Amino acid sequence: MANLITLTTDFGLRDGYGAVMKGVILGIAPQATLIDITHDIAPQNVRQAANILARDVAYFPANTIHVCVVDPGVGTARRPLAVRFGSQVFVGPDNGLITLLHARAQQEGWPMEFYHLDQPQYWLAEISNVFHGRDLFAPVAAHLANGVRIDSVGSRIHDPVLLPLSAVERTTGGLRGEVTHIDHFGNLATSILKTDLSGLGNVSVRIRGVEIGGVARTFGDRAAGELVALIDSAGELAVAVVNGDAAKRLGAKVGDRVEIVSSSS
Amino acid sequence: MANLITLTTDFGLRDGYGAVMKGVILGIAPQATLIDITHDIAPQNVRQAANILARDVAYFPANTIHVCVVDPGVGTARRPLAVRFGSQVFVGPDNGLITLLHARAQQEGWPMEFYHLDQPQYWLAEISNVFHGRDLFAPVAAHLANGVRIDSVGSRIHDPVLLPLSAVERTTGGLRGEVTHIDHFGNLATSILKTDLSGLGNVSVRIRGVEIGGVARTFGDRAAGELVALIDSAGELAVAVVNGDAAKRLGAKVGDRVEIVSSSS
Amino acid sequence: MANLITLTTDFGLRDGYGAVMKGVILGIAPQATLIDITHDIAPQNVRQAANILARDVAYFPANTIHVCVVDPGVGTARRPLAVRFGSQVFVGPDNGLITLLHARAQQEGWPMEFYHLDQPQYWLAEISNVFHGRDLFAPVAAHLANGVRIDSVGSRIHDPVLLPLSAVERTTGGLRGEVTHIDHFGNLATSILKTDLSGLGNVSVRIRGVEIGGVARTFGDRAAGELVALIDSAGELAVAVVNGDAAKRLGAKVGDRVEIVSSSS
Repeated sequence: MANLITLTTDFGLRDGYGAVMKGVILGIAPQATLIDITHDIAPQNVRQAANILARDVAYFPANTIHVCVVDPGVGTARRPLAVRFGSQVFVGPDNGLITLLHARAQQEGWPMEFYHLDQPQYWLAEISNVFHGRDLFAPVAAHLANGVRIDSVGSRIHDPVLLPLSAVERTTGGLRGEVTHIDHFGNLATSILKTDLSGLGNVSVRIRGVEIGGVARTFGDRAAGELVALIDSAGELAVAVVNGDAAKRLGAKVGDRVEIVSSSS
Repeated sequence: MANLITLTTDFGLRDGYGAVMKGVILGIAPQATLIDITHDIAPQNVRQAANILARDVAYFPANTIHVCVVDPGVGTARRPLAVRFGSQVFVGPDNGLITLLHARAQQEGWPMEFYHLDQPQYWLAEISNVFHGRDLFAPVAAHLANGVRIDSVGSRIHDPVLLPLSAVERTTGGLRGEVTHIDHFGNLATSILKTDLSGLGNVSVRIRGVEIGGVARTFGDRAAGELVALIDSAGELAVAVVNGDAAKRLGAKVGDRVEIVSSSS
Repeated sequence: MANLITLTTDFGLRDGYGAVMKGVILGIAPQATLIDITHDIAPQNVRQAANILARDVAYFPANTIHVCVVDPGVGTARRPLAVRFGSQVFVGPDNGLITLLHARAQQEGWPMEFYHLDQPQYWLAEISNVFHGRDLFAPVAAHLANGVRIDSVGSRIHDPVLLPLSAVERTTGGLRGEVTHIDHFGNLATSILKTDLSGLGNVSVRIRGVEIGGVARTFGDRAAGELVALIDSAGELAVAVVNGDAAKRLGAKVGDRVEIVSSSS
């Protein structure tokens, strides 16, 4: 039995939509512990949710069930999905939300299995066309938490929807990547990993017309207000302003180009 | 014994007011499971909270206790209240918060009992004049969760405060209602129910000078960016923009008139 | 064993940072109950977090562990800290977050013990330089919840960092203090306590060029829209607008001077 269920949605916190999902889950699986990853995904932003899920799941215990509902296609032909990633389970629409978890699972060698949720006996009796989080995904997650097998709630498939990944390209003098996530502090995460930097020696980071020399160990290695490049808590190259907001300072947005230039070149 | 307690307030999430209520509850009822419905009710907006409560309670298990603190009259003569609605309990100020739950209970035939909370032995020892959520409602909910009977925490009354309800009027060509709630996505819920539409055949929806033809099954039945009318997850007629924000697009606000015109007329 | 762990951070709710801390805690201490005090401390605002912690901890049951991560010095030489305050425990960086808890403990006579967290066997195996909330403070809190003794996770110290306290000065006609906190409603808390007012008789409150006569018992003692001075739920003199926002009305900010003038003088 699994007891831990997380929620990731674009529902916001104002209207009680996430709370209703919790009511449904606890009605079926009263022993479940519920953790909000976030309900503040930008509306319909599948890629942002995919990014946060991939960063977070490794820190949850085995048998955690992650319900993710960013679902612009609710009520259409898009499939409802459950996926086993190693010891953890994803439940949500089949629209690319698993893209980065899938990439991570491939890197780490986690076994994966995909299931099309097609067994309505594990859903609420009445299904609205606009809120499958409440009527379908929440009850399926609760039944999984109660020990129902994943191959009972759906049929095995092999073609889940995956979005294109952010690439990192080698250039003559270094690397080219892009901003993948901007967090609450205005820190800019990029597609360039710590491991991509090995062998480049001293580097500079170029973004939106500014050049930042070197990769610092942590924020406090620079003075307050300075731009700093560092390796963030997900092992990605990030650009920040010490005690400030790099996104505002640079006018940066997701997708902006980031270039690494090796000083030894 | 009841184990599930929900919280609905206008306290916001920044100052820890809701958390303090949880500390008080868990000090009295350590076995309780706590679910935030929302803390983002607009300050003093009793009607908004009433609306969200009425939509949500049916999805919580039997014996759930719903603590709701939107309380502009805190510390004045307004009564503190507990209400049994069928298998569930409301705890909060007597200022109209139960209005839509009460209407729903009448429709569904749920038995109701109202109690004026007048037994200070179930409150904190010291009662501030400005935070009854912490000092009175949280401890009463915790004692109820511990199995104290509702008729022990207060005295039976029969005249709870109820606000006027949004009406739906028949017109020659259809119906007239109003916008009752605007959610995080900018979707507009109305006072017109799915059941009100039966027998009208094909309809158009008029709101703020625009006319929307037909009631769609779900968002994805229209192209991104289009206005759509549909039945929302609470069984109410709603107006939305596919992958967009109808409230912004239309400049709509709660109370705006919505008209249904039958095409067969 | 302690089962209750609270979280107070400046991480916001959008990126899942607080959720990851919960995943780490529940991996080590699955029986723990987790309560968010707030994740909406203004970025790097140590004093705001210190204020909220000091107001809230008295309402949590004995043996609660309070993890607080507002940590501009993460990864530098600033010490990680655990503190016993009477029956409760603080875990977080040694940067002044405990300032107001410390003052409160001195007033109340709660025994205090301070520990430098220097035992990496209670941390995650890999420690990033930028997220000690996840890698160090969360696991230490979880081990404490599991019954590990506080003197096992760190070495006793006697010189924790404390920030200067807001003073209240006697003036010829009364008192002078300052605004210490502005809450979600725009209510202004001040450094002047209810106990400071005793013996002054009838008073007026001066702030930002306006004078408010008398200290009301609660909001509803004045008409909607009026400025009111009252004793808030933390026992502090506060300035509010009934059903309104005093911070906006007065253009007030933390640090603004507040003067009490005794009418008998």
